Amino acid sequence: MKEKDWLEAIKWDANGLVPAVAQDADTKDILMLAWVNQESLMETLKSGNAVYWSRSRKRLWRKGEESGHAQRIVEIRLDCDGDALVFLVQQIGLACHTGRRSCFFQKLISDDGRVYWKTVDPVLKNPSEIYK
Amino acid sequence: MKEKDWLEAIKWDANGLVPAVAQDADTKDILMLAWVNQESLMETLKSGNAVYWSRSRKRLWRKGEESGHAQRIVEIRLDCDGDALVFLVQQIGLACHTGRRSCFFQKLISDDGRVYWKTVDPVLKNPSEIYK
Repeated sequence: MKEKDWLEAIKWDANGLVPAVAQDADTKDILMLAWVNQESLMETLKSGNAVYWSRSRKRLWRKGEESGHAQRIVEIRLDCDGDALVFLVQQIGLACHTGRRSCFFQKLISDDGRVYWKTVDPVLKNPSEIYK
Repeated sequence: MKEKDWLEAIKWDANGLVPAVAQDADTKDILMLAWVNQESLMETLKSGNAVYWSRSRKRLWRKGEESGHAQRIVEIRLDCDGDALVFLVQQIGLACHTGRRSCFFQKLISDDGRVYWKTVDPVLKNPSEIYK
């Protein structure tokens, strides 16, 4: 296998991105979903820390660069059709900028015909203490 | 909250889609990543079974409609910025069309400078027996 073949095995979308799901390697909780491009994935592999592509800021996003809440890579997986990744990680601190462990803290409730999103996970740290 | 507000809380992309990560509610293994539009998410809620939008076939994809390998919904979660979902599911049979439990069966190996994807999970059922 040629160098970079592993990158070419991935079916990048029209913007050169694929989604990466960060999963806690210990608890197996899903922490967040973000996006990677080739550059961020190469840096993830090289550095051993999750590096994403920020679609809003249009630049590399080294997870934890501001908060210190980095994600140490334990394992990287690719799916059957090559267009989605899983990062198994050791999460330092909290994954979510809201101060919660996981970004997926809103649960869909369907109650007597009423359907709504309910916040079900606690804030563990005040965001103002994370981003100083 | 008005009816359908829960759908409007989701930040649908330019194609009216968001990614949905299916996670085994028992083992917490990540089974697959697929896409949903409003129609498929409404049907998921109503039927209690995962319904995706097939981007390749451009139609609703009722998971298990051909294979019988449906996903019974246990819980639906939305992330902090409203553009990704997690489906916690009870997986009937296997999630992957290759006959594996999960679609994420390729592991990134970095070995003495050589980087490649290695298939690490077993085929549990011959695909020809799943799709008759």
